[in-house]
Amino acid sequence: MKIIDGISRMQTMVKIIKKEGKSIGFVPTMGYLHDGHASLARSARAHTDVVVMSIFVNPLQFGPSEDFNRYPRDFARDEDIARRAGVDIIFYPKKEEMYPARYCTYVDVEGLASGLCGASRPGHFRGVTTVVAKLFLIVKPDMAYFGQKDAQQAIVIKRMVEDLNMGIDVKILPIVREKDGLAMSSRNVYLSKVERADAAVLYESLKKAGEMIEGGERDPKKVINAMSDMIKTKPSMRVDYISIVEAKTLKEVDAISGEVLAALAVFAGNTRLVDNVILKA
Amino acid sequence: MKIIDGISRMQTMVKIIKKEGKSIGFVPTMGYLHDGHASLARSARAHTDVVVMSIFVNPLQFGPSEDFNRYPRDFARDEDIARRAGVDIIFYPKKEEMYPARYCTYVDVEGLASGLCGASRPGHFRGVTTVVAKLFLIVKPDMAYFGQKDAQQAIVIKRMVEDLNMGIDVKILPIVREKDGLAMSSRNVYLSKVERADAAVLYESLKKAGEMIEGGERDPKKVINAMSDMIKTKPSMRVDYISIVEAKTLKEVDAISGEVLAALAVFAGNTRLVDNVILKA
Repeated sequence: MKIIDGISRMQTMVKIIKKEGKSIGFVPTMGYLHDGHASLARSARAHTDVVVMSIFVNPLQFGPSEDFNRYPRDFARDEDIARRAGVDIIFYPKKEEMYPARYCTYVDVEGLASGLCGASRPGHFRGVTTVVAKLFLIVKPDMAYFGQKDAQQAIVIKRMVEDLNMGIDVKILPIVREKDGLAMSSRNVYLSKVERADAAVLYESLKKAGEMIEGGERDPKKVINAMSDMIKTKPSMRVDYISIVEAKTLKEVDAISGEVLAALAVFAGNTRLVDNVILKA
Repeated sequence: MKIIDGISRMQTMVKIIKKEGKSIGFVPTMGYLHDGHASLARSARAHTDVVVMSIFVNPLQFGPSEDFNRYPRDFARDEDIARRAGVDIIFYPKKEEMYPARYCTYVDVEGLASGLCGASRPGHFRGVTTVVAKLFLIVKPDMAYFGQKDAQQAIVIKRMVEDLNMGIDVKILPIVREKDGLAMSSRNVYLSKVERADAAVLYESLKKAGEMIEGGERDPKKVINAMSDMIKTKPSMRVDYISIVEAKTLKEVDAISGEVLAALAVFAGNTRLVDNVILKA
């Protein structure tokens, strides 16, 4: 496994791979890898010739009061997980090279990026689309892999790729969960013992939503209230938002029909956890 | 010479060219070609294997009260000029395919795009950077050619290419002028006989600026006033702006030193003409 930290070295490597006629599968991450990331890399391994994983904690997608500085980092551990998942190249760019002082170009996906997490985290998706556009332009992948856990991010990136004619096949892979249902996340490491135990209620509440809709409930407010009541039984959890939206457009629905995304963000202390399920009415 | 109007056909063609190991020189235009465009194509011809010219009147870079609908179009004439300049492929995308109804992704170069023409034409450069990003991602050129006439556009695009790690060598070629000095422009066709004759004053005023600076004048206000006075002698000309800015950053200067860009936009009736010179103090 190669480790590359310079943008121009990465670009040279990409030219060599392309010249050999090999396909590139790309897994962009912020590191502190867990089995969700590994599942993306394994899928890239199965479907493309060369698997590139980027590890870059992107300052542009963090708000001023968010956890950029304390975001967990452990490169030795990441390297080990990446190697075992079949990664060929870790691309590990430096912040100063990604965003030099004169940097001033941004990519915006309007509309899709404004609700849900976009409303709670202004500027977040601009940071995500900008860095992913840059990484895509450096790595030039044939296929790129993202997790369904960040459902809105996945939809926003798919839209960017289509709108800007990037010609990349974006794959969204299922959420990987802990035994009690908690979605795997690098941020889970922040949780206290009590918060960690209580956090299982997030997925419980999403399962509850599924049961209600399967049982015929079509009023999103009733489903959301039931989810909220369930989460409130855990005093360490504070709801940021719970939404039921059209799965493709992320528009709020008045009545549940077709494919919907039930999505939530919940604070445990300062730690913001997200989770979601796609449900069919 | 091939003419391609579908995005996916163009992408397939690019894949074939790349597989053959050939370089691509790209000249994006809005058509109604003149010798300025031809000079870009000839340069691409001299330095790359395959010359692609796009012809696309990009609605996104026109304001609501601007000349999108009446912008001159003459494809047969363009085809002839392109062929003679050595173009291999004309890419002629359709508006509906470039911007389908659900389109919502935009590229912004902040700061550089706000002054000069950006101040007179809000949203113009967002339209330019977005369409050029799309065209670059479809055509995947090694080198791309733009004219110095749109000086701010050239600087904004170079910044976008660098910031987004597009890995394209952007060449800016000198302004091609009519015998009386008027910068060649597709929009010159709008001019009445009187306006056309009067329009020579634009370049005269830029030459005057050069003489004043060569003569030791360092106060931009004095230079701008002299230029303005000169243009005012032609009643068919109405100044939109005259600016003297740092050539690289486009920042206004208090005193002229180093390399500056003297740039102007002038209305002749509804027709907006631009011109500029780079001057060294």
